[in-house]
Amino acid sequence: MRLVHGVKEMQTISRGLREGGRKVGFVPTMGYLHDGHLSLIRLARGMCDTLVVSVFVNPTQFGPSEDFARYPRDLERDKRLCESEGTDILFAPETSDMYPEDFSTYVVEEKLSLPLCGRSRPTHFRGVTTVVAKLFNIVQPTFAVFGQKDAQQAFVIKRMVRDLNFDVEIIVAPIVREKDGLAMSSRNRYLSPKERKEATAIFRALSRVRQMVQEGERRALPLIKVIRDEIVRTETGQLDYAEIVDTKTLSPVEVIDDDVLVAVAAWFGDARLIDNIIIRKDEL
Amino acid sequence: MRLVHGVKEMQTISRGLREGGRKVGFVPTMGYLHDGHLSLIRLARGMCDTLVVSVFVNPTQFGPSEDFARYPRDLERDKRLCESEGTDILFAPETSDMYPEDFSTYVVEEKLSLPLCGRSRPTHFRGVTTVVAKLFNIVQPTFAVFGQKDAQQAFVIKRMVRDLNFDVEIIVAPIVREKDGLAMSSRNRYLSPKERKEATAIFRALSRVRQMVQEGERRALPLIKVIRDEIVRTETGQLDYAEIVDTKTLSPVEVIDDDVLVAVAAWFGDARLIDNIIIRKDEL
Repeated sequence: MRLVHGVKEMQTISRGLREGGRKVGFVPTMGYLHDGHLSLIRLARGMCDTLVVSVFVNPTQFGPSEDFARYPRDLERDKRLCESEGTDILFAPETSDMYPEDFSTYVVEEKLSLPLCGRSRPTHFRGVTTVVAKLFNIVQPTFAVFGQKDAQQAFVIKRMVRDLNFDVEIIVAPIVREKDGLAMSSRNRYLSPKERKEATAIFRALSRVRQMVQEGERRALPLIKVIRDEIVRTETGQLDYAEIVDTKTLSPVEVIDDDVLVAVAAWFGDARLIDNIIIRKDEL
Repeated sequence: MRLVHGVKEMQTISRGLREGGRKVGFVPTMGYLHDGHLSLIRLARGMCDTLVVSVFVNPTQFGPSEDFARYPRDLERDKRLCESEGTDILFAPETSDMYPEDFSTYVVEEKLSLPLCGRSRPTHFRGVTTVVAKLFNIVQPTFAVFGQKDAQQAFVIKRMVRDLNFDVEIIVAPIVREKDGLAMSSRNRYLSPKERKEATAIFRALSRVRQMVQEGERRALPLIKVIRDEIVRTETGQLDYAEIVDTKTLSPVEVIDDDVLVAVAAWFGDARLIDNIIIRKDEL
């Protein structure tokens, strides 16, 4: 495995791979890899000639009062994990190389970025689209793999790729969960033992919603109430939002009659956790 | 020469060229080609294996009260001219293919876009950076040629390419002028004979500024006054702006002691014309 820090160096390698007709798979991450990331890496590994993983804690997607400074980092561990999963190139750029002092260009998505996490984190998706656009231009992958856990991010990136005509296929891989259902996340490490235990309420609530839909409930309000109640019942949880939205527009639905995303964000202690399920029309 | 309308078709061709290791030169235009465009095309032709010219009157770079609807168009003539200059591919996409109905992603440059034309045309550069990002992803050129006539556009695009890491070299080609000095522009066709004659005041003023600098004047104010006076002296001209700005930041300078851009925008009748000169430090 080759470790590359320089943006220009990575781009030169990418150009060579592209001109050599190699199928390049790409998994962008913020590092501190867990089994969720590894599932994306394994999926990509099976589909490409050359596998590039990036590790970059991107400052522009954190709000001023968010956890950029304390976001967990461990490049040595990430290196070992990437190597053991057959990664060809680990790209770990420096912030100063990604964002020179007079940096002034952003990619903004102005519809799908607004609801859900966009309301609580108003500059988040602008940071995400900007860094992903940069990484796509640097790595020039044939395809890139994102996790379904960040569902809105995946929708926003697919829209960006379509709108700006990036020549990159976007693949979205399923959520990987702990044994008790909690979605894997680097932020789970912020949780105290009690918070960790109570955080299972999120997926319990989502599972209950799916069950109620299977039993015939179609109205969004009672389904959302189930989520609220499940979080309220904990001592350490605070709901940020629970919404049921159309998968094409991310607008709230009143009655489920097509594919919907059921999305939850909740604070447990200092950790803002997100999770979601998609309910398909053919399950109705 | 191959005429391509489809965005997907163009991208498939581009991918093949790129993977074949071809050096692709690209000249993006809004069509209605004049000798200024042809000079860009000739410059590109001499530097590449495959030459792509695009013709697309981009709606997002026109303000609501601007001349999008009446902007001159003549694809048949453009085709003949491109063919005679050795163009390999003429890419002329449809607006609906470039901007699907729920289009929602833009590229915004937030520093160099603000002064000069950015003040009179607040959404202009956002449209330019967005369409150029799209065209770069569709055509995937090795290099692209822009005209110095649109000086601020060239600065903004270079900044975008640096910030978003586009793997494209930007080449800026000199202004081509009519015999009497007027910078060539598709918008010159809006001019009445009287306006056409008086519009030469713009380049006369810029030439006078260069002469005064050569004679020792370094203060921006008297130099700008010369431009104002030259435009005021006409019957049909109305100055939009005349500014002397630093070429790194596009901020106004009080005294010239480094490379500066002397930029003018003026209305003659219904035509908003722009022109500029660069005065280099080593000329001082």
